[in-house]
Amino acid sequence: MLETSQMKSHLTLRPIGFISSPFKQKFGTPRQSGLVASASATIYLDKVRTPAGSLEGLEEFSHIWVVFGFHQNNNETVSGKVHPPRLKGQKMGLFATRSPHRPNPLGLSLLQIHKVDSRQNQIEVWGADLIDGTPIYDIKPYIQKYDHPHDSRDGWTQHLPSTSLSTAWSDQANSQCTQLQLSQNFKKLVEEVLALDPRNLEDRRLENKEKVFKMKLHNIDVHFQYYNDQFVVVGLIDKRESKVD
Amino acid sequence: MLETSQMKSHLTLRPIGFISSPFKQKFGTPRQSGLVASASATIYLDKVRTPAGSLEGLEEFSHIWVVFGFHQNNNETVSGKVHPPRLKGQKMGLFATRSPHRPNPLGLSLLQIHKVDSRQNQIEVWGADLIDGTPIYDIKPYIQKYDHPHDSRDGWTQHLPSTSLSTAWSDQANSQCTQLQLSQNFKKLVEEVLALDPRNLEDRRLENKEKVFKMKLHNIDVHFQYYNDQFVVVGLIDKRESKVD
Repeated sequence: MLETSQMKSHLTLRPIGFISSPFKQKFGTPRQSGLVASASATIYLDKVRTPAGSLEGLEEFSHIWVVFGFHQNNNETVSGKVHPPRLKGQKMGLFATRSPHRPNPLGLSLLQIHKVDSRQNQIEVWGADLIDGTPIYDIKPYIQKYDHPHDSRDGWTQHLPSTSLSTAWSDQANSQCTQLQLSQNFKKLVEEVLALDPRNLEDRRLENKEKVFKMKLHNIDVHFQYYNDQFVVVGLIDKRESKVD
Repeated sequence: MLETSQMKSHLTLRPIGFISSPFKQKFGTPRQSGLVASASATIYLDKVRTPAGSLEGLEEFSHIWVVFGFHQNNNETVSGKVHPPRLKGQKMGLFATRSPHRPNPLGLSLLQIHKVDSRQNQIEVWGADLIDGTPIYDIKPYIQKYDHPHDSRDGWTQHLPSTSLSTAWSDQANSQCTQLQLSQNFKKLVEEVLALDPRNLEDRRLENKEKVFKMKLHNIDVHFQYYNDQFVVVGLIDKRESKVD
């Protein structure tokens, strides 16, 4: 059925915009949309690529599908099997997963609309799982009538235990929160991200109590450790200030 | 927030495969996936672009998201506002619709898995809304846990009356069905497609009883008319035979 001529039908995508999100690096970025509800982000659309009126009516929807590029992938080759982090070493066919390592590095996220600003060509969203600066290629409304089959099976993902780890804050981290004037929303964001356990398989296995993990959220470096079955935030560093030094 | 350098981050997609579907042209092709449940189709994946094992585990899921290209778009320019066929002339911002006329001509369909053939690199699906030969760029499992928000609003689409027109078959069409050895499934497919009313706004307005519409399904040209609030199939022509003539 496949003809060689067809396989040449390439499609070159140009970003319609970019997202500004609290996640500055892969580590700590949620693996699916909606898992960190308080992760607010803003999609800035390019005015040239999004003609006047193109967002009109979108504010009446509650959610959007966002098609984006996994722009931080460095892999040159694609493997048929991947290791989903929650499968503890077991392999799965790549098309049975949402791994970023795909023949075409496209991602798909379902984000909750907070505010549509047609004049500024901006969309504020909740539940983001995109790294800051991710290129956006398309936005479509979520329509339950078409997007929610009445009867579905979730494959290997349905047997996974849901992770929800708790977080404690050291006295030092608490006083740094006050000192840096960080909001309760920031603390909530940290706790929602850690609840999902961002550690890789190796670190989960070793459970090294001494290890200090670092994760950048907004412009804050969050330092934390794992012991007694929970995370402890041990320090916060404002990266804006350190740049000035 | 947007820098010129970022806007240059193009992404070139190469098809991972193509779909073979009963829909040979835009006219008659359902506007959303799942609307014509009996529309079976097969995705043929390219073996080079889909490494060994890449479909493993997919058979445990019931549905897939398919990212594809609107390859029959001829528009060079994109308008900010589009006319959704069911809005009877009213305009809507393009990103509040799933119109094929988008800055990046990507489509997204939710298809039901009928059979996954890992060895042949094929996926048989139901509920297709893709034109025969459409290039496929990505396949992801549908995961209800992430893809179904508990509380959602469907915007302008929620107020639309659902269309379900009935179809009669002329004596001639019935005898041609027998003569061409067409299955009950073929008749069902025709009826499901016509139930959605494939006519454009102009034809719906005119209601010309004399007009014969033609729509190609599989290799059969289906001729039908609209009168007395229903469709009547008036003739069938086997295009395979006519090619031989």
